Amino acid sequence: MGRKIIVIGAGAAGMHAASTARAKSKDAEVTVFTEDEHIAYSPCAIPFVLEGKIKNFESIVMHTPDFYQKERNITVHTKTKVTGVDMDKKTVTTQDGKQYSYDAIVVATGGTVFIPPVEGSKLPGVFTVRTVNDGKAIQKAMKGAKSVVVAGAGVIGLEMAVGLKHAGLDVTVIEMFPQVIPRIFDSDMAAMVQEYCEKVGIKFVLNVPIGAIKGEGKVEKVVAGNVEYPCDFVIMSTGVRANLEIPNMMGLDVGALGAVRTSPTLQAYKKGRLVKDVYLCGDVIMCESAVVPGPTMSQLGSSALRQGRVAGINAAGGYAYYPGVASAFISRIGELEAGGTGLSRGLADYYGLNYVEGKASGLTRARYYPGGKKITVKMLVDKDSHKILGSQIVGGEEITGRVNWVTAAIIKGVTVEEFVTALENAYCPPTSMVMDIVNIAAEDAASKL
Amino acid sequence: MGRKIIVIGAGAAGMHAASTARAKSKDAEVTVFTEDEHIAYSPCAIPFVLEGKIKNFESIVMHTPDFYQKERNITVHTKTKVTGVDMDKKTVTTQDGKQYSYDAIVVATGGTVFIPPVEGSKLPGVFTVRTVNDGKAIQKAMKGAKSVVVAGAGVIGLEMAVGLKHAGLDVTVIEMFPQVIPRIFDSDMAAMVQEYCEKVGIKFVLNVPIGAIKGEGKVEKVVAGNVEYPCDFVIMSTGVRANLEIPNMMGLDVGALGAVRTSPTLQAYKKGRLVKDVYLCGDVIMCESAVVPGPTMSQLGSSALRQGRVAGINAAGGYAYYPGVASAFISRIGELEAGGTGLSRGLADYYGLNYVEGKASGLTRARYYPGGKKITVKMLVDKDSHKILGSQIVGGEEITGRVNWVTAAIIKGVTVEEFVTALENAYCPPTSMVMDIVNIAAEDAASKL
Repeated sequence: MGRKIIVIGAGAAGMHAASTARAKSKDAEVTVFTEDEHIAYSPCAIPFVLEGKIKNFESIVMHTPDFYQKERNITVHTKTKVTGVDMDKKTVTTQDGKQYSYDAIVVATGGTVFIPPVEGSKLPGVFTVRTVNDGKAIQKAMKGAKSVVVAGAGVIGLEMAVGLKHAGLDVTVIEMFPQVIPRIFDSDMAAMVQEYCEKVGIKFVLNVPIGAIKGEGKVEKVVAGNVEYPCDFVIMSTGVRANLEIPNMMGLDVGALGAVRTSPTLQAYKKGRLVKDVYLCGDVIMCESAVVPGPTMSQLGSSALRQGRVAGINAAGGYAYYPGVASAFISRIGELEAGGTGLSRGLADYYGLNYVEGKASGLTRARYYPGGKKITVKMLVDKDSHKILGSQIVGGEEITGRVNWVTAAIIKGVTVEEFVTALENAYCPPTSMVMDIVNIAAEDAASKL
Repeated sequence: MGRKIIVIGAGAAGMHAASTARAKSKDAEVTVFTEDEHIAYSPCAIPFVLEGKIKNFESIVMHTPDFYQKERNITVHTKTKVTGVDMDKKTVTTQDGKQYSYDAIVVATGGTVFIPPVEGSKLPGVFTVRTVNDGKAIQKAMKGAKSVVVAGAGVIGLEMAVGLKHAGLDVTVIEMFPQVIPRIFDSDMAAMVQEYCEKVGIKFVLNVPIGAIKGEGKVEKVVAGNVEYPCDFVIMSTGVRANLEIPNMMGLDVGALGAVRTSPTLQAYKKGRLVKDVYLCGDVIMCESAVVPGPTMSQLGSSALRQGRVAGINAAGGYAYYPGVASAFISRIGELEAGGTGLSRGLADYYGLNYVEGKASGLTRARYYPGGKKITVKMLVDKDSHKILGSQIVGGEEITGRVNWVTAAIIKGVTVEEFVTALENAYCPPTSMVMDIVNIAAEDAASKL
């Protein structure tokens, strides 16, 4: 018999931890528990199903528990709440009173959308965008609906706003910060995204928090800054908080960002000391930043997979570590792509860094090649070390690879001068300018140092 | 009065050297000589003009001599042959007998398509794809023509073949090596490109050199391996050789690859000793490889710009160096994109390296998101150092950024394990899979180490 590995949570992190543990150890016994009905789906796909771009919710579920049992010898218990974890006896208790013993446990309980505790926040018609069932509920609410308020102008909020607008609804986005994508985008780049969304027909109410949600038995309007916005339902895209119920039950240390503190091996701490045989991954954890010394959170599907891999290898008795993260992200908002990596201006200011800003606009193809789309690249560069701190890119196509490219440079601590000189860009008139706009933004930053 | 800087050659390298020198030194006197009629155009665009994707040859000329004079205070002498360079007196003589003195000279004489010295190679109807005038001559030859032979199945040859096929011609590609893109692509990846081209309707004759070109007063057929291929004209895309006339006249050291040897500052050598005030850039030079110790050539527009920048800064009295190059490239062949970076199998074998090959196929978008295109990624990884040696990518969209991403990793000496763990990919269903195929290819390679 191999090791008994228990995974709590069946999102991207948990299922990848389970699959990696299985690949690492052929004789391990791998068991997954989740309260959710569906597993192995991408929450990021929900806005695109509602928009009609993806045909249905069934298609975004990559694999069923049956697949995992048959193909990977992983047992998945859905709709099963874990009610107790005994770290001394190394057992897990589920809601039906059953006990399961483990040699290693992976906690991947994910996150939940934070709903501001305003009047009416529990009224029928207030939705979050997290689970397949959330998506199905929104789809139902859309039938016959005319207008919606989206609370929160982060990327999920904007993807939802454009998706619902394209689906024929009147859309108002209310954001408490004075710009869209407030945490990870600078105001100048955010303004470009907002302008695009406004052209699509979305209305924005910025710099105003939601005061109340009102209605008789269901949502009828949202109040913000003493103005009433009538709507048939409300989407809460107001940020994701770590699900701490199980980590708290286990007594694991929670850090300043409100998520579980982890070592680079993704082990938990308890009262400051590393805990044996307990690993964590996904939206529930705090990990190291690749840009500045200190903790960060990286609540992204792509990070969940990398973390799940590390947790899975270690749970199976191997050795892997999770290095600092730059949190490369990309969002497609209608026909516009907005991506970024590393620090935004807000975060760089928070860390007290001295930096310069390089910026360039151009086309995604050679100037004379038809069909090129506009692209703007911004780069923040540390004045002292000359290292690239972060980058934000907005454009019509081919943004993802550019974000990954700059991310590699950030992770490797490349100076902006080295980026300009050494980090080549492939060139062909139909797919790029001979000097890519990313390089030109870097040159602009270098010229200010 | 500032420094007198003379640039010989007005391609991407020469013009970027001139512009950079001007930006670096406001009072320098910058003069450019070229035998060509046109300057500042991208030879890479020619196939797409002939295909009809780009409207005309005028549009691919980015700037005129007039623009350089007025906007950048750079004097460009077109159709002007340099007949002498006196490195002691620091003067340049042109064909009209005029002499110009310099403080620094930049030699950017570029390359010329090598035409195999077979019977009939000088017949009217034998074309190369290098200058705007080449392109115009081909455009003229296309009128009324029915069939063409393309000699050489490198990326330019294939872009030409597909372009001419789309323009209605019957196209046969003859290649002396047993695969397409022989120097920089592995046979398995090349086979995918060939298969695509064959679907477009192109015929291939591989593993056979051209024996002769025959015709009465103009091209009528090509003979290869005792078979005759009737055609109205021939495109020679048979590789580019450095233009050594001026470097030879100057007595500069030429290296084993048939190009001028340069230092990292892009200075020339003469009898093994560094020459003061002589800089080189572009297709005429040999530079350092980023992957293996030793020289390479990087005859790419994007490399020309980076080299031109270094030569220009140094010619203007500044200091810059050109680091090792991975030669990231991308080609769009009809609807297919083929790109690569670093070493191919052939080059890795040539250097005697022990390596493993990782490979993965998938989609450019999430599996369930409509419109995703097929993509295959290959990665060569050194068995000893675990560093990434090279990568080749074939797919339907968004290949360029991926090539740049892996290039950054190669330049920074990233091991494949570090790539898998640390080099994040941004994710969003419409633009990527949650684990990008590049990462999966890297994981495949890592699993073989």
